Amino acid sequence: MTARTTPAATTNFEDLYPSRVKSYPETLDRQDPVVYGTAQDGPLTEEQLNQYERDGFLILPAFFSDHEVAAFRAELSALRDCQETKQKPEAILEPDHSELRSLFSVHRPEISPLFSKVASDKRIVQMTNQILGSEVYIHQSRVNLKPGFAGKEFFWHSDFETWHVEDGMPRMRAVSCSLLLDQNDEFNAPLMLVPGSQQEYIACVGETPDDHYQNSLRRQEVGIPDHQSLDEMVNQYGIVQGVGPAGSILLFDCNIMHGSNSNITPLPRSNLFFVYNSTSNYLVQPFGNQNQRPEFIASREDCEPIVPQTITHD
Amino acid sequence: MTARTTPAATTNFEDLYPSRVKSYPETLDRQDPVVYGTAQDGPLTEEQLNQYERDGFLILPAFFSDHEVAAFRAELSALRDCQETKQKPEAILEPDHSELRSLFSVHRPEISPLFSKVASDKRIVQMTNQILGSEVYIHQSRVNLKPGFAGKEFFWHSDFETWHVEDGMPRMRAVSCSLLLDQNDEFNAPLMLVPGSQQEYIACVGETPDDHYQNSLRRQEVGIPDHQSLDEMVNQYGIVQGVGPAGSILLFDCNIMHGSNSNITPLPRSNLFFVYNSTSNYLVQPFGNQNQRPEFIASREDCEPIVPQTITHD
Repeated sequence: MTARTTPAATTNFEDLYPSRVKSYPETLDRQDPVVYGTAQDGPLTEEQLNQYERDGFLILPAFFSDHEVAAFRAELSALRDCQETKQKPEAILEPDHSELRSLFSVHRPEISPLFSKVASDKRIVQMTNQILGSEVYIHQSRVNLKPGFAGKEFFWHSDFETWHVEDGMPRMRAVSCSLLLDQNDEFNAPLMLVPGSQQEYIACVGETPDDHYQNSLRRQEVGIPDHQSLDEMVNQYGIVQGVGPAGSILLFDCNIMHGSNSNITPLPRSNLFFVYNSTSNYLVQPFGNQNQRPEFIASREDCEPIVPQTITHD
Repeated sequence: MTARTTPAATTNFEDLYPSRVKSYPETLDRQDPVVYGTAQDGPLTEEQLNQYERDGFLILPAFFSDHEVAAFRAELSALRDCQETKQKPEAILEPDHSELRSLFSVHRPEISPLFSKVASDKRIVQMTNQILGSEVYIHQSRVNLKPGFAGKEFFWHSDFETWHVEDGMPRMRAVSCSLLLDQNDEFNAPLMLVPGSQQEYIACVGETPDDHYQNSLRRQEVGIPDHQSLDEMVNQYGIVQGVGPAGSILLFDCNIMHGSNSNITPLPRSNLFFVYNSTSNYLVQPFGNQNQRPEFIASREDCEPIVPQTITHD
């Protein structure tokens, strides 16, 4: 397979979204559309597309049936309890103990045959094709296990900021799909989003250390926005929680500001997470000039366009 | 002033609520009423008393005016910014940095003239007199500063469990009054309560180390209920959030199970906290047989019945 990377250094790829460069934070305007396709492309309606464009996200409650969710949860349990899985580089453990926190590359059949099918589910892929106005491939995928009693907080961040600086994603043309495997409500620390914040880009302060990902996936310390910029953003746009029953889908823009509080309730909050990137937006050299992160965090080699498939989840 | 302590050892005070004794957790029934007075005593109505008895708490939205809240917040700012205050033993700092997390004994004029007046506010004291069916004194008071961005979680606990084991509070006959100094909503990690849980007492596992309070006020590690008991409790009773605008009051029983998630939002969640104990329920020797905790955490010397006062907050 051929790597689809165009090295920024050799092609002088313009950095429209510099971050972690200056000694003070800056808020820049977004240079890219949020929605690239139209309602005529389907399956999302004009109203849904407008909502996605305005808010930067869209919740589709109970998208998968209880029967499908049960199968997903059985797969999740099997992965969590598998010692071999926990020792893979794709496995990220909780800071305090050895429980699985996240498992990457679940869209690859060798990691999870079932979740790899979900990643190419026709209904999901067609929505991402429509939003991004192109074919898509999986930039990153993972399952997040946010257990009851001990789910750690995740501070505010724009995914794109990290993908741009650390992975070389050139433009804002990616959509994340979070599939809720548990009911998410106001108690179990659901994802919080700042609706409209996808239109602004907070350039962060601080240099990226080498091999930053080995710690940042547990607790991010650079690439996080400053308090004053966040304060202003939340004052302007407010906060919305991504809540819904198990089986719901949350589609959200790569640049929307989001995070979550810790979860002391007994109620877990696990989810499947697929990032669909446009095939017009393949990675180049990281704009932060670090080493490339591993393939399981940022696809460079294995990024064929996804062929949408009609899948029977049995 | 005379200490009102009756040493448990010399009087054979029966321990109705043993905890941190056995190597396995146990759930015991409550042996005491939740409400001791009647609607005839006023000011709470029969409906409010019934609700308090059933749920173990009562929210009185916007109990104090915006004008009063502004004065309370000014006092809070002054205390927070005072270096001298931060060096007092009554001051508890955040684990990660030197910000003030809690300040105890704010009902004493030498700590805060204004908050000491609030503690004897006629409207509050009469409600606690009514619930407890007796005169009351302040067992403990504090102001909790839950700042934006970095408010730490507080794991599930019954206050009474600690006050019984570590302070020698004999019976369940105390009511806490939390006065919200900021709007509390689903975003900024409000207090979560398990309604009805005041009827059960989870005897915890684990011995109490000496001078436990020096760490437990920042991050409690013993005297916390086990996961299985909590899981069953939440399954049975559910969870309610103590939300309301700034100036609201939350009255809650000493034995209700409660806790809070961390708060990554820019929105602070500060509150004033007074514990009114019945004058029929003065402290004895700690049932856990540790050293007594300091006077600023558990009043023994200075516990005259409060005379309710009509106060002008100007």
